[in-house]
Amino acid sequence: MTSAGAKNAAASVNLPVGFACHVGNIGMKDETDDVMVLASSRVAATAGVFTKSLFAGASVRLSRANVADGRAQAVVVVSKNANVATGEQGERDAANLAQRVAELVGCESDQVLVGSTGVIGVRYPEGKVDAYFDKLAADAEGTVPAAQRADGPMARRGGPTGDGNVEDVSHRGGQGLWKADAAAAAAAIMTTDTHPKTASAAAGPGSVVGIAKGSGMIEPDMATMISVITTDAEIAPDRLDAMLRRVCDVTFNALSVDTDTSTSDMVVILANGAAGQVDEAELEAALGAVSLDLTRQLAFDGEGAETLIVVNVNEARDDAQAKRVAKAIVNSPLVKTAVHGCDPNWGRVAMAIGKCSDETDIDPGRVRIRFGSQEVYPTPATPEALGELEAYLASDEVLISVDLGIAGGAFTAYGCDLTDQYVRINADYTT
Amino acid sequence: MTSAGAKNAAASVNLPVGFACHVGNIGMKDETDDVMVLASSRVAATAGVFTKSLFAGASVRLSRANVADGRAQAVVVVSKNANVATGEQGERDAANLAQRVAELVGCESDQVLVGSTGVIGVRYPEGKVDAYFDKLAADAEGTVPAAQRADGPMARRGGPTGDGNVEDVSHRGGQGLWKADAAAAAAAIMTTDTHPKTASAAAGPGSVVGIAKGSGMIEPDMATMISVITTDAEIAPDRLDAMLRRVCDVTFNALSVDTDTSTSDMVVILANGAAGQVDEAELEAALGAVSLDLTRQLAFDGEGAETLIVVNVNEARDDAQAKRVAKAIVNSPLVKTAVHGCDPNWGRVAMAIGKCSDETDIDPGRVRIRFGSQEVYPTPATPEALGELEAYLASDEVLISVDLGIAGGAFTAYGCDLTDQYVRINADYTT
Repeated sequence: MTSAGAKNAAASVNLPVGFACHVGNIGMKDETDDVMVLASSRVAATAGVFTKSLFAGASVRLSRANVADGRAQAVVVVSKNANVATGEQGERDAANLAQRVAELVGCESDQVLVGSTGVIGVRYPEGKVDAYFDKLAADAEGTVPAAQRADGPMARRGGPTGDGNVEDVSHRGGQGLWKADAAAAAAAIMTTDTHPKTASAAAGPGSVVGIAKGSGMIEPDMATMISVITTDAEIAPDRLDAMLRRVCDVTFNALSVDTDTSTSDMVVILANGAAGQVDEAELEAALGAVSLDLTRQLAFDGEGAETLIVVNVNEARDDAQAKRVAKAIVNSPLVKTAVHGCDPNWGRVAMAIGKCSDETDIDPGRVRIRFGSQEVYPTPATPEALGELEAYLASDEVLISVDLGIAGGAFTAYGCDLTDQYVRINADYTT
Repeated sequence: MTSAGAKNAAASVNLPVGFACHVGNIGMKDETDDVMVLASSRVAATAGVFTKSLFAGASVRLSRANVADGRAQAVVVVSKNANVATGEQGERDAANLAQRVAELVGCESDQVLVGSTGVIGVRYPEGKVDAYFDKLAADAEGTVPAAQRADGPMARRGGPTGDGNVEDVSHRGGQGLWKADAAAAAAAIMTTDTHPKTASAAAGPGSVVGIAKGSGMIEPDMATMISVITTDAEIAPDRLDAMLRRVCDVTFNALSVDTDTSTSDMVVILANGAAGQVDEAELEAALGAVSLDLTRQLAFDGEGAETLIVVNVNEARDDAQAKRVAKAIVNSPLVKTAVHGCDPNWGRVAMAIGKCSDETDIDPGRVRIRFGSQEVYPTPATPEALGELEAYLASDEVLISVDLGIAGGAFTAYGCDLTDQYVRINADYTT
């Protein structure tokens, strides 16, 4: 599995059998890659979770509709422009993008999911999407669309066959239009990310490979920033959907960079069945590992962040209470700045627990707080231990543990420190 | 009324008739003033609102008990140490402080309210409080305690008489122990504040004078940082309590610097009746004006803040919905950094509204957003108007207005921008 420990680790990983990606520059903002198309060689079982934002963008609304039948064949992600709050023109732009990708891949447009992140309230530059796909079509003249190059239009096959022997578009040349490299796909969807984020895990005869982007405006609300996960395992859409929701709850939804929920969040998974059936527990474990890995990478690459903060709350009344307390701690600007200042100021952790004033069964007299393995409350740390904690807080990853002393509920939340750099990045972003 | 417009305005205002303050240095942390005693020449009608934090400190717990009967004669506020999470010793320290102040003032110890802010989890330096009050008592040898110098022990008078002619301790010499200067009292309770905060307003024949401190760890939860308000108006405790709660809801409780709720928040008001009865509507207007003025000063002096942000939400389903939306906007790190960067990035305001995902009756199609008087959504601002907005966002005070287009609910929230300096102050605070 890809490690999130090293902030700039360049992960080299291929997409699972039957998946390929295309990356390029439409010209949304500058000359860097700003479009990524990920296609399956046949229709895949698909599930997605999306932002609950009331200002959800045109892409999210279109994807929500297209994922409803549990089947999709391609995902397109545009970066540098969110296509949010762009009115009816934004709806048409999202639909047109899906249509152009469907033509490229050779599938139906309602089997294309669309993601888009970047600036809010600005429509896509007029004509650039069509110009880009016109040029792609001209370049690919005479080649067979991705989905039709294997054994006929996958869109009409009615879903995965489980034969494990689908022709693998990702390993064919095709004029360089399609690649198997997940890192290239991850790089093309970056906005303020400092490095591409990929993760992979084996699942029996198949594999799970995920990519993700996002480093600010991150506090997923039953959804998250953009992550696209692929697997060649075979699984029914409804079981995939339930599995994705269980996994998201303890991974992407346990993440917060700045308490701000994006209008463009989405996590989608495509399972094309090329590797045949996989033990579901094993698949869920692999999906969980990939999602957690990506979550940690996102937290560690939070805007301006220097430290990954993991908050582990135990002995809560239930998991939901543990989650509320863990989120209060990981979101507290004062806890985040204390970690940034390498200051073992546990009083701010106590303050953050205290903020959860609806949790009246929390008794400060039963609470225990630790930094790493060092208890700091109620047993005070010795001056020597405090000195060691300052060094510990300067490391890449800091664990804050809280026992509430009530029952067996537990939750782990992921976040990052708050730095001068976060302020600079966000004060200087658009103008 | 004192203006909050000028950040370093030195307000010179005397406490109302019958009130006096004493300030000094106990040695909690350094040589600056760290104790303030505010006393009434007789028992005053009293009301208070306190933090809802589960980790409420010993001072808050003691004050909550002592304010319950609606009567008090003195308030003592210690700065540089919160006496929070200090166990049973902390309880004894708070009780001892109240006792020593009672002896100084000449009242019962259960008529003393105690406030304390500063570092959490460290007990008062041993012996220093007693040494300080021993010395005060020795210095004052031969002088009459404050409350006994007028017409006998006020504590046994049974409350305000309404004669408007109580001897005014605040204007006597008394070896310089007592002063009438509200700014001196406000200065003595500062922690990371950059200037003392006072406000005053006339109320018929009397006046309302308030002081406040606080610039970080501020998101009051039905209470606030520390504010002490005095009036010589005569009013029954139960009516004073109801009035204070109504006023706090739209002033101190509309304030957020960083979403972090202090363990030490309190607002108390003492009404000693020296000016006799005052029309209650007039008194409430004066209390509202003083509280709003202090709230704006607190927001403007938020840690590291350069800009006061006022968020005005109208046309909500009800005031409660308007408050949730206004708080989401004023608390958004991305809105706060956009203002800091003078960036009219209204997409972040839309994002913050969108975060209120439980408010399903909010329709983005009916929402309107303005910076100052300039609409930015749904009607886009012209390039010229955007240029003017950049200049507007560089001013001392920025107004963000949102109309939800639902009904008549409204709320105004107060906050500040998020700056590099906030991070530096809080990364460097204790160690």
